[in-house]
Amino acid sequence: LFSPVEIINKKKRNIELNESEIQFMIKGFTTNKIPDYQVSAFLMAIYFTGMTVNEVSILTDCMVNSGDTIDLSFINDTVIDKHSTGGVGDKVSIIVVPLIASLNIPMIKMSGRGLGHTGGTIDKLESIKGFKTELTHEELLSNIKNHNMALIGQTKNIAPADKKIYALRDVTGTVDSLPLIASSIMSKKIATGVDGIVLDVKVGNGAFVKTEEEGRRLSKLMVEIGKQLNKKVVSILTPMNQPLGKEIGNLNEVQEAAKLLENKDYDYDLMEISLEIASQMAKMSSKYNNIEIKKIKELLRDRIKDGTAFAKFHELVVAQGGNLDDALEERFENSYIIKSRKDGYVDEIKTEELGYIASQLGAGRITMNDKIDYYAGITINVKLNQFVKKGQVILTARTSRAYSKELETRMEDSVSISMNENKNKNNQFILDIIR
Amino acid sequence: LFSPVEIINKKKRNIELNESEIQFMIKGFTTNKIPDYQVSAFLMAIYFTGMTVNEVSILTDCMVNSGDTIDLSFINDTVIDKHSTGGVGDKVSIIVVPLIASLNIPMIKMSGRGLGHTGGTIDKLESIKGFKTELTHEELLSNIKNHNMALIGQTKNIAPADKKIYALRDVTGTVDSLPLIASSIMSKKIATGVDGIVLDVKVGNGAFVKTEEEGRRLSKLMVEIGKQLNKKVVSILTPMNQPLGKEIGNLNEVQEAAKLLENKDYDYDLMEISLEIASQMAKMSSKYNNIEIKKIKELLRDRIKDGTAFAKFHELVVAQGGNLDDALEERFENSYIIKSRKDGYVDEIKTEELGYIASQLGAGRITMNDKIDYYAGITINVKLNQFVKKGQVILTARTSRAYSKELETRMEDSVSISMNENKNKNNQFILDIIR
Repeated sequence: LFSPVEIINKKKRNIELNESEIQFMIKGFTTNKIPDYQVSAFLMAIYFTGMTVNEVSILTDCMVNSGDTIDLSFINDTVIDKHSTGGVGDKVSIIVVPLIASLNIPMIKMSGRGLGHTGGTIDKLESIKGFKTELTHEELLSNIKNHNMALIGQTKNIAPADKKIYALRDVTGTVDSLPLIASSIMSKKIATGVDGIVLDVKVGNGAFVKTEEEGRRLSKLMVEIGKQLNKKVVSILTPMNQPLGKEIGNLNEVQEAAKLLENKDYDYDLMEISLEIASQMAKMSSKYNNIEIKKIKELLRDRIKDGTAFAKFHELVVAQGGNLDDALEERFENSYIIKSRKDGYVDEIKTEELGYIASQLGAGRITMNDKIDYYAGITINVKLNQFVKKGQVILTARTSRAYSKELETRMEDSVSISMNENKNKNNQFILDIIR
Repeated sequence: LFSPVEIINKKKRNIELNESEIQFMIKGFTTNKIPDYQVSAFLMAIYFTGMTVNEVSILTDCMVNSGDTIDLSFINDTVIDKHSTGGVGDKVSIIVVPLIASLNIPMIKMSGRGLGHTGGTIDKLESIKGFKTELTHEELLSNIKNHNMALIGQTKNIAPADKKIYALRDVTGTVDSLPLIASSIMSKKIATGVDGIVLDVKVGNGAFVKTEEEGRRLSKLMVEIGKQLNKKVVSILTPMNQPLGKEIGNLNEVQEAAKLLENKDYDYDLMEISLEIASQMAKMSSKYNNIEIKKIKELLRDRIKDGTAFAKFHELVVAQGGNLDDALEERFENSYIIKSRKDGYVDEIKTEELGYIASQLGAGRITMNDKIDYYAGITINVKLNQFVKKGQVILTARTSRAYSKELETRMEDSVSISMNENKNKNNQFILDIIR
């Protein structure tokens, strides 16, 4: 029999906790036997003393087992998932699912909704008229059997301990703790029954993780948790100092993903990152296990060029009840057109700020109950280090809300132009791959 | 307008908080506007990052102002108080009040009750039949006017923020934080309207503070708070590796104090520490300001020898309704007689353990609702480093509860005898004086 104070004190003094102690705390909190004021002190102690790989793996496991785990054994193959730590304009999941399916690898992708400055894949897909993100078990089985893919929202009882802990962290200044972040991400993914996970750890001014160093530490921790819990994990470190691709919003992001899959028009960064993630995922599957990443990427490029990828996307949307033709219709009317006030090089794009501005336009939520305007969004026409001329359009934005001078100023200020070419420009799209 | 999370994050990142931020947290918590889970995370952040002298002084001041402050201006003199951080067998307050009054210095001493392994002065005094520890304002005025002294319990609304914070610290592993300890002690004392405080910081295996180093740091912090809040503060560091005097309990401690004041029979450590504290207190008063400590001690010894001190004690008890003759009657029958099992030197006395054993006998409380048996208690007949012979009585104990073999064994184990004389024996009663 344990006492919560004893366990808090142990953690506080940096003594490693064992399985039953961590279980006692997590189970006690989830079943409302341990009050939140003890758990918040415990979380703050973890913030300061950290956790060993062993501790954080046990914590992850406890959170996985706090709710339902999904049985995906009906898929007669390794099941691979991807997770992004969250950025602005990140529509990679929408691209990756049809790409993977085009390689004949079955895939169920479970995604979330947006909050704060980042969007959510589920919100984006719901901007397609008719698209159902909740499927019955029968629909799911039939979609996997007939189409090799499904893209759905998370079922409710996935890692409820994580949900409860996250809500407490959010209001107690204990969000930015690496072991707490790592266990939160990993528990949600592992509970969905996958065999392998490709992590996209975003780093930069539009990401939760601000520095490469921190991103690398988070990556290593999650890879280690994977080892302890027998899951294949690869973490890809990617930059988030500018939005990914050029669209921020919902329907406009779907359109951008569709264009890339159709090989019509795409941003180099979005293509490179999508291909890296998809090929790393494919390599985890039994079918492509022995094939080199470089070769898989070539295959994927072929699938895009020969129309298979877009056909798969169309198949996905239709299978889940959506009207893709309607979604891809061009109908946007700009409410804001922001032009450069001078000649010069783009030396900073305030990415998080752009995410918040998109939310203000109606594209995102400030609180979980806000309604999303699927047509609202921003298009960024410039990339970091690019030379622009005075008067050149750098961004446009759509909204159904009233014009706001303040928002216009914020948009103008979100891209800064400098006379000097940036000497340290870094055009790397993949910063590191950690396994 | 502040947000609690913002302030928690600031503290967490070791950024100094200003007055309005600390006020916001303390006032918010006291008025139930900030929930306990945020405050416990805040307290844990303080545990790890500490507090500057400025922060801890502001915190103290906020806690003072969270409730009533007592107006002692009717005493036409400086008002001095003492506070012990808590030990076993500490009956110094009972000795010091009549001693100070015997020097014609007016004194109101407010004391607390016992909990855990330490006793409380108010419980000890209530072992005297009829002794009232709650006085009306009129009674208090009249006692000060006629007798120069009163020894009472704390009024209810003294530093309620401290009470609320302490209750939370107790269950969240945030008790052992120097700034939180210092502000808790100082706020309670300052709210009682005193001009000067002599602190008795106990150090050792029977005290809350285990090392001299830690005791010195706590002392310095409290002296600094005093300077910031314009109170005279002197901190005396005293050892607590064995009970103070020989009695642990309630009525037996009153009898021991009475004997010392009557110059009949006393332990050297108890006398030296009582005289040091009383003389430091006297020196803070306007009357003895210019007199040397050594000289004041001599005066106090005289007051004991000539009967004034004991007469004052008698006066105190009678003034508050107590029957001293009844209290001083010898009536104890031992339930346990513990003898040494070998020849040797006393090399360890488990002081905290003896405190807990006394509680088990009925002399103390395990929870705040327990009833005290005033006759229960322990007498320790030996001192550290003393030579004892096999069969010599080392301690005796009284209880009205059933005999317990386990308790007897714990008593035997609480004093350890070694064949080797302790080379590092330290007979210092005053380890340091910090001002």
